[in-house]
Amino acid sequence: MQMVYGAAPEDTGGMTANQRPDTARRPDLDGLFDAKSVAVIGASGTPGKWGFGIMSIILMRSGSREIYAVNNKGGEVLGLKAYRSLEEVPGTVDCAVIVTASQYTPAAMEDCVRKGVKFAVLFPGGFAETGEEGAELQRRVVEIAQRGGIRIVGPNCMGHFDAYSGLFTLPYEIPVKEGPVSVITQSGNSGVAILTTLSAVGLGLSKYVSSGNEADLHFEDYLEYFGDDDRTKIVLGYIEGLREGRRFLNLAGAISRKKPIVIIKAGRSDKGADAARSHTGALAGADEVSVAAFRQAGVIQVDEISDLVDTALAFSGQPLPRGRRIGLISMGGGLGVISTDALRSYGLEMAQFSPATIDRLNSELSNRWSRGNPVDPAGDPIVYPLVWPLFEDKNVDAIMVVGGIGVVGGLATLLPVHPSLRNEYARIVQASEQQELDNIDKLLAFRDRYRKPIVIARTVSGFKTEETSRVAEKMKQNYLTPYPSPGRAAKALARLVEYSEYIGIAGGRS
Amino acid sequence: MQMVYGAAPEDTGGMTANQRPDTARRPDLDGLFDAKSVAVIGASGTPGKWGFGIMSIILMRSGSREIYAVNNKGGEVLGLKAYRSLEEVPGTVDCAVIVTASQYTPAAMEDCVRKGVKFAVLFPGGFAETGEEGAELQRRVVEIAQRGGIRIVGPNCMGHFDAYSGLFTLPYEIPVKEGPVSVITQSGNSGVAILTTLSAVGLGLSKYVSSGNEADLHFEDYLEYFGDDDRTKIVLGYIEGLREGRRFLNLAGAISRKKPIVIIKAGRSDKGADAARSHTGALAGADEVSVAAFRQAGVIQVDEISDLVDTALAFSGQPLPRGRRIGLISMGGGLGVISTDALRSYGLEMAQFSPATIDRLNSELSNRWSRGNPVDPAGDPIVYPLVWPLFEDKNVDAIMVVGGIGVVGGLATLLPVHPSLRNEYARIVQASEQQELDNIDKLLAFRDRYRKPIVIARTVSGFKTEETSRVAEKMKQNYLTPYPSPGRAAKALARLVEYSEYIGIAGGRS
Repeated sequence: MQMVYGAAPEDTGGMTANQRPDTARRPDLDGLFDAKSVAVIGASGTPGKWGFGIMSIILMRSGSREIYAVNNKGGEVLGLKAYRSLEEVPGTVDCAVIVTASQYTPAAMEDCVRKGVKFAVLFPGGFAETGEEGAELQRRVVEIAQRGGIRIVGPNCMGHFDAYSGLFTLPYEIPVKEGPVSVITQSGNSGVAILTTLSAVGLGLSKYVSSGNEADLHFEDYLEYFGDDDRTKIVLGYIEGLREGRRFLNLAGAISRKKPIVIIKAGRSDKGADAARSHTGALAGADEVSVAAFRQAGVIQVDEISDLVDTALAFSGQPLPRGRRIGLISMGGGLGVISTDALRSYGLEMAQFSPATIDRLNSELSNRWSRGNPVDPAGDPIVYPLVWPLFEDKNVDAIMVVGGIGVVGGLATLLPVHPSLRNEYARIVQASEQQELDNIDKLLAFRDRYRKPIVIARTVSGFKTEETSRVAEKMKQNYLTPYPSPGRAAKALARLVEYSEYIGIAGGRS
Repeated sequence: MQMVYGAAPEDTGGMTANQRPDTARRPDLDGLFDAKSVAVIGASGTPGKWGFGIMSIILMRSGSREIYAVNNKGGEVLGLKAYRSLEEVPGTVDCAVIVTASQYTPAAMEDCVRKGVKFAVLFPGGFAETGEEGAELQRRVVEIAQRGGIRIVGPNCMGHFDAYSGLFTLPYEIPVKEGPVSVITQSGNSGVAILTTLSAVGLGLSKYVSSGNEADLHFEDYLEYFGDDDRTKIVLGYIEGLREGRRFLNLAGAISRKKPIVIIKAGRSDKGADAARSHTGALAGADEVSVAAFRQAGVIQVDEISDLVDTALAFSGQPLPRGRRIGLISMGGGLGVISTDALRSYGLEMAQFSPATIDRLNSELSNRWSRGNPVDPAGDPIVYPLVWPLFEDKNVDAIMVVGGIGVVGGLATLLPVHPSLRNEYARIVQASEQQELDNIDKLLAFRDRYRKPIVIARTVSGFKTEETSRVAEKMKQNYLTPYPSPGRAAKALARLVEYSEYIGIAGGRS
């Protein structure tokens, strides 16, 4: 087999048994992501149950939309009247969230058809992913839904949300803020891991969907919708197998010209593909093929969730570089060597500074500095005055700083605190914090003026002020969150460069 | 050039201008790491000065040894009488820590000779790393020292310590506890990064040295000494260039049979080598050569500090596996696919479980579980009962668990906390904590009984109880600290397997 997503006239575009060739046009998902009325079928007041988590979060986040609890036992759920059936719900229901076990799902879907529901989010597992019996049950549910024109998310999914509309069908309370990232995931647990990792680095989201078994709505449908969504600036995806491979590549090719698409394609290895088949019954393509086809469509492929989020962080805050010549500043010579190795291993180039830049660095530093790129101040504890000349140097396309930025109090916080000096240290840290805040403002202004990305790598763990300071908060808010290592910063920067070359902002390799 | 550390009869074994061919035998460094009397020349009471940090830490940590402050201004330093010169110090001085600027170092060394000092730790830069003038100054200092039989650490170094003897000449207060790791670093700042990262994952140290310019004592001297040190179970190194390449390879070949040697060889790339030359004037070998020569000597080579510490963590706590067949448990199918891909990418094999194991897992889990390796409980929120059968299965050489272990309260901590349920959640978390502590005891007992390594990967960031719980503490103490991602856990496990094969505990690839 030459290509999984091959171009032979008669091929199926990589579609599996789960194909739906007649719907290769963008479904209108506004009613899914901003449903005005939502019913939770299987709502529960018992902590630990899915129907409890989902119900609580909808209630906390829902804003002005109508929320209904449906539970065949009646009574109350979290202070809300629980209707014994969907029929009893007084108003219309745009979106039904179904949490009841798989064997009750056909009946619940029949209720949805009668009620005129538009979208159903199906949490239960026990469908196609478990074998032929489950697949048959899944087909029945889809048939019922299609009769009523209902579009299905899932089954075997873990919810969806729109951070701007405020509709959340998540079972867990994950701190989600508004932002530029949208996520489509074929694994619910991977989705939770992606969301908590995004949150940890300060990234906000537009839309999220756990697509589950994709019995009706496919990865490609969400991708097309997110491609047109102005609030989505970056699309992240977790894929085990695509139902409409050719459509995916066509969509990705078009969307990736406008916004980056970053994908984990899981199941690339032999045994990983076996695991994917057992997990979602997905057809996992051979790795080398999808790598080539994905790359041709402008898709940025990564291996791990941390890598996915690292990449999203770079694209969230940074302008696209005009080339691959990196100016590197490292607080320590050895760290500069490690960082240079990392940049080179990703094919980036070390910028040749202009004579004016060298002069300016000479005037800031003792004659022990490295006199070139990487800039190693060789003990002089300054960093920001070294950054400004690099922004202004036309030979520098992007900047990487290793250590020194965002560490309130600097190495002072690692100095031994003799009891008599406590107050003095507190003063040092406070003054340093204000100075850092001012410098970060200036850095952001330089970044905007010169349209050059700057990535920061942390080198020392455990600074007392690192995680909690106002500086850390400000850096997060401006998507300047430091990467945990030079290698990860370099890799994220390389992705920016490659994408910039792909869309034609940066030239190719020199 | 075939080999940098080649075997041609007449070659110099990779030695540079800084060679010292006459001392290819183990120097006795007991007097360096456990000096009974120490003088700090350039001791200072001014926070921010090196002489302050070093002096404070020696005083805090020194125990019963004699500590003297020397400062040509006299007076007091941190409550201690400051002698105007080394000569005035009343007792003997085994070890002198010299913090004064480079131009005063020859005079300070003359004082050391007169005083009968055995070891000098030279912090100042401004020597060979700055050019020919500095190199000449460095040669003068070495000549003076050799007249008195003084052995030199540095210059241009950032101190040394022995966590067991309690002698610390570090300028920063880094939380260091006793443990199995020893570190030799040719970069002081990289050393600080290594130490804080080791501390963050709970690893303790035996000995540490920042070797600086290696004017006298070389990386190889420390390596030989650490090779014979019973408390050192793992040697970590940061290398830019070796002075005695052949000696290094001979030593490494012998030591790596007894204990793992894990090395960052920085300056592997073209521009990285340039940066290394500018940093320490080191001769950086071409990457492909050193990779081959290092591997032949059993050296485990890594790229980043995080990787160095990940590897040290695996070797600190884990028995060596008898093969490369991994049993994988993942709390989530997608995470299982990602993790399988990661294990395969490092050449590890997925174990084929015995029928007995499958039976036992069947009895623990609903019929929705993955029925094979990786074990995906498909929603059943249990993990420990899945671990025990894998320890007992003869087809499993090592275990990796992704998610589920060490997260107190489990996903409950991500559940929405309705105010009326606060107490109930607190109870859940508390009960869960005790249960986790018991289970971890049991896990450690299984690990010891079956001599199988188990690595744990964290998947979800931001659990409220993750970092601070007694469980996290217990895991750290037993070197079970979770890796931040499946990829990093898999890589560390692969290193264990490869080393185990190298020393012949595990067979080769099947």
